[in-house]
Amino acid sequence: MEFVRPLPTFLVQRFQGWKATAYAENSAWYRRLATEGQRPRAMIIACCDSRVHVTSIFGADQGEFFIHRNIANLVPPYEPDGNQHGTSAAVEYAVTALKVAHIVVVGHSRCGGVQGCLDMCEGRAPELEDQTSFVGRWMDILRPGYEAIKDAENKPEAFEKEAIRTSLRNLMTFPFVEKAVAARQLSLHGVWNEIAEGGLEHLDPATDEFAAI
Amino acid sequence: MEFVRPLPTFLVQRFQGWKATAYAENSAWYRRLATEGQRPRAMIIACCDSRVHVTSIFGADQGEFFIHRNIANLVPPYEPDGNQHGTSAAVEYAVTALKVAHIVVVGHSRCGGVQGCLDMCEGRAPELEDQTSFVGRWMDILRPGYEAIKDAENKPEAFEKEAIRTSLRNLMTFPFVEKAVAARQLSLHGVWNEIAEGGLEHLDPATDEFAAI
Amino acid sequence: MEFVRPLPTFLVQRFQGWKATAYAENSAWYRRLATEGQRPRAMIIACCDSRVHVTSIFGADQGEFFIHRNIANLVPPYEPDGNQHGTSAAVEYAVTALKVAHIVVVGHSRCGGVQGCLDMCEGRAPELEDQTSFVGRWMDILRPGYEAIKDAENKPEAFEKEAIRTSLRNLMTFPFVEKAVAARQLSLHGVWNEIAEGGLEHLDPATDEFAAI
Amino acid sequence: MEFVRPLPTFLVQRFQGWKATAYAENSAWYRRLATEGQRPRAMIIACCDSRVHVTSIFGADQGEFFIHRNIANLVPPYEPDGNQHGTSAAVEYAVTALKVAHIVVVGHSRCGGVQGCLDMCEGRAPELEDQTSFVGRWMDILRPGYEAIKDAENKPEAFEKEAIRTSLRNLMTFPFVEKAVAARQLSLHGVWNEIAEGGLEHLDPATDEFAAI
Repeated sequence: MEFVRPLPTFLVQRFQGWKATAYAENSAWYRRLATEGQRPRAMIIACCDSRVHVTSIFGADQGEFFIHRNIANLVPPYEPDGNQHGTSAAVEYAVTALKVAHIVVVGHSRCGGVQGCLDMCEGRAPELEDQTSFVGRWMDILRPGYEAIKDAENKPEAFEKEAIRTSLRNLMTFPFVEKAVAARQLSLHGVWNEIAEGGLEHLDPATDEFAAI
Repeated sequence: MEFVRPLPTFLVQRFQGWKATAYAENSAWYRRLATEGQRPRAMIIACCDSRVHVTSIFGADQGEFFIHRNIANLVPPYEPDGNQHGTSAAVEYAVTALKVAHIVVVGHSRCGGVQGCLDMCEGRAPELEDQTSFVGRWMDILRPGYEAIKDAENKPEAFEKEAIRTSLRNLMTFPFVEKAVAARQLSLHGVWNEIAEGGLEHLDPATDEFAAI
Repeated sequence: MEFVRPLPTFLVQRFQGWKATAYAENSAWYRRLATEGQRPRAMIIACCDSRVHVTSIFGADQGEFFIHRNIANLVPPYEPDGNQHGTSAAVEYAVTALKVAHIVVVGHSRCGGVQGCLDMCEGRAPELEDQTSFVGRWMDILRPGYEAIKDAENKPEAFEKEAIRTSLRNLMTFPFVEKAVAARQLSLHGVWNEIAEGGLEHLDPATDEFAAI
Repeated sequence: MEFVRPLPTFLVQRFQGWKATAYAENSAWYRRLATEGQRPRAMIIACCDSRVHVTSIFGADQGEFFIHRNIANLVPPYEPDGNQHGTSAAVEYAVTALKVAHIVVVGHSRCGGVQGCLDMCEGRAPELEDQTSFVGRWMDILRPGYEAIKDAENKPEAFEKEAIRTSLRNLMTFPFVEKAVAARQLSLHGVWNEIAEGGLEHLDPATDEFAAI
């Protein structure tokens, strides 16, 4: 594999700093997590965006959260067709193997993926319509949501929130999710992070709207 | 969406702690990242496992790394068939839109996904063979790698490292990755984290083996 | 320019080592920083002293910090008189052009410049009082701080910390600094590095004293 | 000093990583440097730019280099008028107190300060002409150099190199520099770093031109 390069020094240094501090302080706990396996309390589904590290926002310590991150924190609908569905695999593992008590879908402001979908829906992104555009095809999951937000005052923000609702609705199409929710073994949550001001709104089931917490 | 629940209090507390500390300390920078957009230096592809937070290990601060996390840090081969490929979408966005300089694939010890694949390959996991098993179908990506490790002394560890090699090889099947690597605009790296002792090994291109760093 | 000499071999070797390692590992990122310009998160004002490299202490990688180093990490008061003020120019560029989110003033133990000022204040350094002494005139910036520390048990250390306070107070006399601080676009910090034991204390706004971190 | 903030956590983490690694490995040497004082071999005069850390390029370890960094690595002419001259103070301290054997002026490509001066010289930067512009007044040091480069093919690069020559010529106007050079106790050097490709050229006294090393 001659195309691979050694780990860059700046990452080696970061690792060594972690090893000598956070790891050193917690080595007993880390060893125990290794021996006994993980037992995370919640699954978090968040965006890959470098500005939204849920490990920071929710102070995720080792062993607490099972975290899936993809473009625009989307969950596709249940489709057991034998093809590869990375997000569905993560949800299945979290719910059936790890039996997490919560799934939290975390969206955020200024989401590049959601903006791309908005551009597609409004005819401004022919390159994303291309069959070979992975980002375009991935964002198709959100496409049906455009109807609900097309008259919104702030369309990007409304669409980001619709992406969270879409993921939550799609989660409920998974039989094992629906069953665990019905049995009160699992609860689902949606939050939206405003990245400039560090705001957090959650989807309030009473009003079906997002509200600051 | 009556099946959704408000954000649990323990997460509200965590958020408020973050807001009052890390956010408050860095609000000017966060605002600027919001206004000017992200410019991450590297993409990291890691596992969802709650014991392997690359944000800790590499001290990832806001804006530095674009992070995709899925089961067993796998990248499927390039397959532009118009279906939804969340991992491929994340790679495409990182390389073509964000133009990251590095992609680091981070594997780890005691990986449940890799263990499941090993169980499938050795006939111990009929439930994962099922057409409807998302985890099983997802882990099929790694299946061809079994040949290379079936006689290893420590099969789980060898398979975890083979998963990293598989992802790196598959990354190179993406035309835009191959092109960026050839143009020296992108470099690929593989590391394996031993979670009990906090160890880190990287794939050394000189020997094609993993070596402690 | 017959008085100039070629670069000494020991520096050529150092450079070639860097080129073959750190540069080679990060060439894509360095090219991108060249093309798109720098976007440093913080300005650091530190001493020229060879024992206090803030690039080491804060692991500063390319592109992260805008660094001004002068004798005793001093910032003079705002004085827009049309004369040359190198430190004021650096602060102006960092705040108004680069819009850094933080300015960190880093002082240190055993500072030769501060010791010189102490000697002047106590009549032991007539040569520094001379009109033509650049070090003496530069250290005049700190001179008014002597009153606050003249009865301290450890006068050099107290004066080094007073130098940090003086710089921070002087920074606030620059209208663009004061405005950015008021708008919460910029925050100011003071730290003191004990070089023998590798200690770091920061100025705690709650107590107005330096405290170990 | 209620306007000061505690050190941000990301810098605390960086420091703790350094303390536990680089400091821990070298504590005996650091203690000795603290007790016996610094004895740097060279002074380096470099730019504040976040993309040009001479500590990286020349692998500067603790105690080796006395480093002054200002906008555009400029040295003003000798002017013992009793005013504050931070750069002159740094030069004076390096040559007369530390008795360094070398002064290396390090310029670089894409220098924002030099570009600003070019804009002034060509009438495109009235804001820098303002009496109150610290950057403008500081860059006045380079202004006389415009004549020599105004017909160059690549004016920014030619001006960056002229800035290095200007600093070297100005260094020789300091009596203590001139005397140390004449006594062969000090040698002066000029280098220019091309930041995209990691290139380094030095001023060759034989030709008075910059040449790759």
